[in-house]
Amino acid sequence: MEFTAQMIAQYLGGSIEGNAQATVHTVAKIEEGHPGALSFLSNPKYTPYIYSTRSSVVLVNADFVAEHPVEATLVRVPNAYEAFARLLDLYAQAKLPANGVEQPSYISDKAQLHPETYVGAFAYIAEGAQIGKDAKIFPQAYIGRNVCVGEGTIIYPGAKIYDDCQIGNRCTIHAGAVIGADGFGFAPTADGNYHKIPQIGNVVIEDDVEIGANATVDRATMGSTYIRQGVKLDDHVHIAHNVEVNSNTVMAAQCGVAGTSKIGKNCMFGGQVGIAPHTNIGDGVQVGAKTGLAGTIKPGSMLLGTVGQDAGKERRAIAVYKNLPDLYRRLNEMERTIAKLMEEK
Amino acid sequence: MEFTAQMIAQYLGGSIEGNAQATVHTVAKIEEGHPGALSFLSNPKYTPYIYSTRSSVVLVNADFVAEHPVEATLVRVPNAYEAFARLLDLYAQAKLPANGVEQPSYISDKAQLHPETYVGAFAYIAEGAQIGKDAKIFPQAYIGRNVCVGEGTIIYPGAKIYDDCQIGNRCTIHAGAVIGADGFGFAPTADGNYHKIPQIGNVVIEDDVEIGANATVDRATMGSTYIRQGVKLDDHVHIAHNVEVNSNTVMAAQCGVAGTSKIGKNCMFGGQVGIAPHTNIGDGVQVGAKTGLAGTIKPGSMLLGTVGQDAGKERRAIAVYKNLPDLYRRLNEMERTIAKLMEEK
Amino acid sequence: MEFTAQMIAQYLGGSIEGNAQATVHTVAKIEEGHPGALSFLSNPKYTPYIYSTRSSVVLVNADFVAEHPVEATLVRVPNAYEAFARLLDLYAQAKLPANGVEQPSYISDKAQLHPETYVGAFAYIAEGAQIGKDAKIFPQAYIGRNVCVGEGTIIYPGAKIYDDCQIGNRCTIHAGAVIGADGFGFAPTADGNYHKIPQIGNVVIEDDVEIGANATVDRATMGSTYIRQGVKLDDHVHIAHNVEVNSNTVMAAQCGVAGTSKIGKNCMFGGQVGIAPHTNIGDGVQVGAKTGLAGTIKPGSMLLGTVGQDAGKERRAIAVYKNLPDLYRRLNEMERTIAKLMEEK
Repeated sequence: MEFTAQMIAQYLGGSIEGNAQATVHTVAKIEEGHPGALSFLSNPKYTPYIYSTRSSVVLVNADFVAEHPVEATLVRVPNAYEAFARLLDLYAQAKLPANGVEQPSYISDKAQLHPETYVGAFAYIAEGAQIGKDAKIFPQAYIGRNVCVGEGTIIYPGAKIYDDCQIGNRCTIHAGAVIGADGFGFAPTADGNYHKIPQIGNVVIEDDVEIGANATVDRATMGSTYIRQGVKLDDHVHIAHNVEVNSNTVMAAQCGVAGTSKIGKNCMFGGQVGIAPHTNIGDGVQVGAKTGLAGTIKPGSMLLGTVGQDAGKERRAIAVYKNLPDLYRRLNEMERTIAKLMEEK
Repeated sequence: MEFTAQMIAQYLGGSIEGNAQATVHTVAKIEEGHPGALSFLSNPKYTPYIYSTRSSVVLVNADFVAEHPVEATLVRVPNAYEAFARLLDLYAQAKLPANGVEQPSYISDKAQLHPETYVGAFAYIAEGAQIGKDAKIFPQAYIGRNVCVGEGTIIYPGAKIYDDCQIGNRCTIHAGAVIGADGFGFAPTADGNYHKIPQIGNVVIEDDVEIGANATVDRATMGSTYIRQGVKLDDHVHIAHNVEVNSNTVMAAQCGVAGTSKIGKNCMFGGQVGIAPHTNIGDGVQVGAKTGLAGTIKPGSMLLGTVGQDAGKERRAIAVYKNLPDLYRRLNEMERTIAKLMEEK
Repeated sequence: MEFTAQMIAQYLGGSIEGNAQATVHTVAKIEEGHPGALSFLSNPKYTPYIYSTRSSVVLVNADFVAEHPVEATLVRVPNAYEAFARLLDLYAQAKLPANGVEQPSYISDKAQLHPETYVGAFAYIAEGAQIGKDAKIFPQAYIGRNVCVGEGTIIYPGAKIYDDCQIGNRCTIHAGAVIGADGFGFAPTADGNYHKIPQIGNVVIEDDVEIGANATVDRATMGSTYIRQGVKLDDHVHIAHNVEVNSNTVMAAQCGVAGTSKIGKNCMFGGQVGIAPHTNIGDGVQVGAKTGLAGTIKPGSMLLGTVGQDAGKERRAIAVYKNLPDLYRRLNEMERTIAKLMEEK
């Protein structure tokens, strides 16, 4: 896709300075500009780059005043960052495959497919599945029986949705993610083996959720595992059975949440956090990377540490921890001194 | 699938109280009951719910005495929990796809497929592969050359089994799991690069094993990586080359076991545990979440900690760790006091 | 594939002792030898096994002197280990599928496929993709639009390469790996939701890279995420957007590197390491398993610890940490003693 500065200015309602016919086919940071690229200048720190950038077109704020000659074509807009973001959204949307069904694909005649959807080759859509308008089911994706996929939702290549799960509108499920595999439930038997507890619940993913590549959300034993509206889970995140992750909570890569835990709204988790079973985390909690948590966590807490505690306390404990060898030496010395004092008494 | 209370009572050998024609099509916890659902009451703690549950049919113990009117149809059985579990097993079994081969699929004419199996669309079965009776090979699964899949084993969508691996009877391999990828072995060369050490062994998975979604079990450099009878591995677990995990050991999500380690029987691992290469863990060892282990671990040990040690010791160390800032303050104070004492002497 | 001792000796330029027609079809460690297997003896520690091994053919160093009768056929070569490694390479190469396109597969007529490649059934190759000579695209792999796959590169079953990513020559991408999924970038909005920041960059993987099963390398927000020449990433490793991993760095399983971090050349990471966003790690750094790192790390450092520090310091801190309960007891005792001293003064 190629665009002229004029088309961009028109779309954004901006004004042009320079060659209105300059064309771009990609975007670049202003400091890494190259011919054919569109950049933007918003942060004054980057202003020097506008005089040297090789990008063909640069969005600038309306009040930008050039102090040296600028080679790129400028498009002046009220807010260059926001305008750039709008263009990116447009670009990302335009890159999605057009609606239509590629062959060979497998679509059960008992599935309901909105006529305006994309289904890639080798995608599998089982009986009873419902696929909403403008959903994009990429190649090799698996949509199990009775699965609902909402409007505008993107299921990337090879993502797997087990039977009976529900995916809301405008969700993004990345490649390799597995939604609705069995929860990890086994009952020990008298002979030292385990008997599998059938996992007959499902997963409910609400609207505007993003699930990262190779993440897993397990189905509930009974009832549902819930991923509420607006949640964002990064790659490799694991959500166990019967967990509830409430709206707009974000978790960085490789976090794991064990069974039946409840996570509040608007929480933020760093990477590799681990949550024990039956943990209850309030709204707005912030958890540092690699933290481990169990029990009940108050809303608004900030937590850190393998055995997670208040982040401030943990930071002070870490500081002493790093001095432990010195502390140990001083303790030994004091003991000797005290022994001497006692002796001399 | 819909069942009447009568059919359920007949199957379980129970007796009915109420409407024998009441139908159910799903199950629910008694406290989350709804019309069309089957529930059970076993734990007396939940008895109050039987008077308010909206479930259509409830299994109760033979000796249950209602103290108030009950709306649901009751089915009396000797052990309500066990009966419910039996029904769940039946239900889970009934939900599996019927035997047959969906098209398009790829089955080498040099593969041996038992006539009673399910092979989903886009599944790939390479030459020399053997698929046992009642095995279920879901869509988009990959069965490499000479792979054996035992009787009644389920390979969920998109699971990948590399060449030469063996999967026992009644195993469950969840979506996205990868069995038999190369072990991570590279020999440094004189010029600072690495030379790949070919990984020409395989993976042997014995009977009754469950492997979670997106888990990985790497093939041995030579010989076999072993997952023994009854082992259960949760999602994202990683088993490196030449590891042996012995029977009935269970590992929660995101555990990683490095090369050539040997794990005993009937061990239990919490989530995100890491095992160093060449670790040797005895039978019946219990390992807390996020623990790191190396060396030799005695049978029956209970371990905890990033640098794993006896769980009791680690808990005491954690308690002091959390008090380190206070401990540090007291130590400083004592130093000052001692200095004063020394001065005044 | 079956080979005689004679064929092996001829290929390696070695000499035979024993039955030149002895055949092998697999390899085994000398101590686990069995009929039909080829073994080698290099480390003198294993010499006793040569008298009892059941392997059919054993490679030995030219100067090996048997002190007892040996049943296996011996092939004498200048360096038995090296010769064995050469044979393994040959064997591994021979096991790769022959070039050709299996059906059904999906190859856009706007993709460029070198005539000498393997494309497995259910593989998807989108428009604009370029596949180099001797590349092996296994079944169910996904090659997005404009993706370049270099010569001799192996894409194992079900690996997914998103649009616009570049994979160099002689790379190995294992099953379930996802290259080029969106980086994890969201801008909070005034109403407490998040707005997705389009991730329109790509991933560039240079030559001789190995990416483990179910690993993920996310595309850059803008520009590229770089995996430089010779890097080896184990299973489940996560590389976030805009990261750069420099040449010949190796990372063990389940490591995670957060956004925009830069990792030097020839670094070594143990398993489950976590790297914070914007970390800058110099060349030749060695990082112990489960370490967490942030900030700037000097070249050649050795690091350890959840809050990573110099490995030697961390080991001393760990030693004291494990004694914390005892240290605490002694501190309490000293306090009492000092109090007494003060009193008696």
